[in-house]
Amino acid sequence: MPDSFDNVSVSTKANVYFDGKVVSHSLILADGRKKSLGVIFPGEYHFGTADPEVMEITAGACEVVIDGTTETRAVAAGSSFTVAANSGFTIRVTDSPCEYICSFGTP
Amino acid sequence: MPDSFDNVSVSTKANVYFDGKVVSHSLILADGRKKSLGVIFPGEYHFGTADPEVMEITAGACEVVIDGTTETRAVAAGSSFTVAANSGFTIRVTDSPCEYICSFGTP
Repeated sequence: MPDSFDNVSVSTKANVYFDGKVVSHSLILADGRKKSLGVIFPGEYHFGTADPEVMEITAGACEVVIDGTTETRAVAAGSSFTVAANSGFTIRVTDSPCEYICSFGTP
Repeated sequence: MPDSFDNVSVSTKANVYFDGKVVSHSLILADGRKKSLGVIFPGEYHFGTADPEVMEITAGACEVVIDGTTETRAVAAGSSFTVAANSGFTIRVTDSPCEYICSFGTP
């Protein structure tokens, strides 16, 4: 997973969800692809998707249940999970903050 | 204040301070200047500076006391304050999250 993204446009305003338990900053790559860089503090949260999303975990760990499934999947730093468009997922963080790179749209 | 910074390099890892009460992402402009985009949740925090810093408040508000001074200054969105190198500041946020653009080094 990359340490940085170069030649991007980054929004100066953060995205703050769940009273600050999830914080991200949005960026747009030179080729137009959209990503966000975020931190999830301990708790359990549900997010809906509009576009498909790839969630790469860069620090910490989480457990994920994709909408419409019952399987709980453990995802550690260095691993990722994908979510279809117009779906969603429940993510649970129990320990140290979980950091992610979220990529929107078809990879 | 800008809505976005273009043609920057952004670190994928966040900076998490004070148990997640302050979260930022670091970026480097094309000309080498360094900035961070952050969110401060309610509380009072002290930061030391190495380089000079300009803190532009982009959302919410805060109160600031620069190290070595006794004046409390209220800083609202759209305003900024500066801190010298090798100094520091105490920042207090009491209401909704305070967002900032921090610029390091001589402006």
